[in-house]
Amino acid sequence: MGAGAPGGPVPVRPDLQALSGYHSPQLAVAVRLNTNESPEPPPDAWREELRAALADLPLHRYPDREARELRAALAAHHGVTPEEVFCGTGSNEVLQCLLLAYGGPGRTAVTFEPSYAMHRQIGLVTGTALRSVPRGEGFAVDEPAAAAALAESAPSLCFVCSPNNPTGRAEPPEVLAWLLERTPGLLVVDEAYGQFAPSSALELRAAGVAGAERLVVVRTFSKTWAMAGVRLGYLVADPAVVAACELVALPYHLDAITQLAGRLALRYEAEMEERVQRLVAERRRLEAGLARLPVTAWPSDANFVLFRPETRPAREVWEGLLAHSVLVRDTSSWPGLEGCLRVTVGTPEENDRFLAALAEVLVPASVSGSGGR
Amino acid sequence: MGAGAPGGPVPVRPDLQALSGYHSPQLAVAVRLNTNESPEPPPDAWREELRAALADLPLHRYPDREARELRAALAAHHGVTPEEVFCGTGSNEVLQCLLLAYGGPGRTAVTFEPSYAMHRQIGLVTGTALRSVPRGEGFAVDEPAAAAALAESAPSLCFVCSPNNPTGRAEPPEVLAWLLERTPGLLVVDEAYGQFAPSSALELRAAGVAGAERLVVVRTFSKTWAMAGVRLGYLVADPAVVAACELVALPYHLDAITQLAGRLALRYEAEMEERVQRLVAERRRLEAGLARLPVTAWPSDANFVLFRPETRPAREVWEGLLAHSVLVRDTSSWPGLEGCLRVTVGTPEENDRFLAALAEVLVPASVSGSGGR
Repeated sequence: MGAGAPGGPVPVRPDLQALSGYHSPQLAVAVRLNTNESPEPPPDAWREELRAALADLPLHRYPDREARELRAALAAHHGVTPEEVFCGTGSNEVLQCLLLAYGGPGRTAVTFEPSYAMHRQIGLVTGTALRSVPRGEGFAVDEPAAAAALAESAPSLCFVCSPNNPTGRAEPPEVLAWLLERTPGLLVVDEAYGQFAPSSALELRAAGVAGAERLVVVRTFSKTWAMAGVRLGYLVADPAVVAACELVALPYHLDAITQLAGRLALRYEAEMEERVQRLVAERRRLEAGLARLPVTAWPSDANFVLFRPETRPAREVWEGLLAHSVLVRDTSSWPGLEGCLRVTVGTPEENDRFLAALAEVLVPASVSGSGGR
Repeated sequence: MGAGAPGGPVPVRPDLQALSGYHSPQLAVAVRLNTNESPEPPPDAWREELRAALADLPLHRYPDREARELRAALAAHHGVTPEEVFCGTGSNEVLQCLLLAYGGPGRTAVTFEPSYAMHRQIGLVTGTALRSVPRGEGFAVDEPAAAAALAESAPSLCFVCSPNNPTGRAEPPEVLAWLLERTPGLLVVDEAYGQFAPSSALELRAAGVAGAERLVVVRTFSKTWAMAGVRLGYLVADPAVVAACELVALPYHLDAITQLAGRLALRYEAEMEERVQRLVAERRRLEAGLARLPVTAWPSDANFVLFRPETRPAREVWEGLLAHSVLVRDTSSWPGLEGCLRVTVGTPEENDRFLAALAEVLVPASVSGSGGR
């Protein structure tokens, strides 16, 4: 059918018709370990500060379009200038602004797969050509393949997720420096899980690595800051990159309450660091528990673990866990992740419940009583 | 310089380099009449409900991706189904989703100028071809020019702002039906100021006008609901349009607090309607005041008035008002609005102060003491 015969439906862009959107079912379960949220809420004192400040916020006025106070607070947190910080409604909006400004028709973005699906999805929606480079052994960046793809496609943007979601490992600084040297455009390091990892691209940037003006570090308040419901993300980059994002960002895109919530959250950095340490300790316990079950698990620098059940198909295991009211992420249909599931690190009780349910699903004979359904 | 020589800066998309972003200075003044905000805050009782509900909101969890409760409340408010409602972070995000889904390279959007600048700006950022049709006498849609442009360009989207910002008039239902008949794609009626106007495209839709499945009505909480700081907009349209927007929207794009704030606001519909009536009465008083000054003012169905000073250049008048700590919108550089300024309806005190300042700036001799600075 032609685009919009009068009276008929109007088709969406033909290149979007294959797009399936983003799928992670939001189900009512006892144990939610599917979207890498913090299992702990943000500090009560933060919430009370936010509620108190809301009494006086002039909500009938547009928010500060440049989010100056929030950017100043983030700049102080990272030891950079406010001109090096751009904030968005979740790191997805930050990624979208980068792709709108630097991607688009006639331009290419490189990704290393499997990785965070939104880099490709936003690339597709913004009309950016995508070049996927399969990861190598242990899901590490395959350097020969990467070098060839970067040289051939001369991408405007190269995305690397560190720690990589959903496989878990952070990129060593030398790999990031190697990529920065070989990519002609921006190297966007998505550090959604940055504070869980042993190192950050922010250190490379601070050290003035060659090409630092093309290095973009993206972070979010959704994971380590326990604020997924607030939707706040940001990038740290050269002021020219910040200016480019501001050019394409919708005016007043970041609401006044979110700006306030982020600014207040930074006062609770110590609590964030303690929460991260608790989750790292729990991740180690979860990894040890998985090592006692018939699964292959990959090492993680984040708040989740990728594993492959070896005795039953992943989908059956996912369903079996759901029958125990434990929801994990079914990544088994993602290219390169056949047979794999991803579990978020929860509270100690949630992790125990997950491990017990997984044991029942995988080795029902080892458990007295009924196994699974 | 080529796109991204190693070590060099990375240029933004060439078609964006002329883009200047969105400009309306956020200045600290006593009387802010430049962005069509509500001069009154939202109800205290709403704010208290919001603060109370925030105590229990699980902010470490992602928000409901489909905003089901909010959409159900909006659907009930408008007498439609939730499948006909899509919500975004301000109506700008709703417009962006429409342009991402239905616009893009190889597709055209028609606008009637002068009008809300973001229709064109988001069109440009999303790579949509733009066809501007100049408005005719009194800024009405010029039907012969519109018919020719629609027939020639066969747009995927046709935008019409009603009441039109910044010129003020609502489109009569027969003009909207006429446009809907002649445009092959979506007719997007941007009703940011809808509740100030005598009629709405929602009525056409409810009446089942021919082509109703291509009629999209966009609204915002920024103006009539007095919630510009919250950033919440939505559309009412055929479920296929809602599904298309969901396809391109970023996952979890609408934060949990905004969803809550919107849902609670709908309980204060009577207060909103009363506020709108007060502002309409003030607009009439403002129009009467302008009629006594050497300006040409255009009739308005919204919460702002477009006027052209006849004795001094618009920029000087804008600066003169600013010297009195009164900020209005300088639209004098917009094509088709040479010499014009736009003033938002404020509180009675703000409107008095604006009128007094304007009198001093325009006819200093009529006022004793110093005129202007």
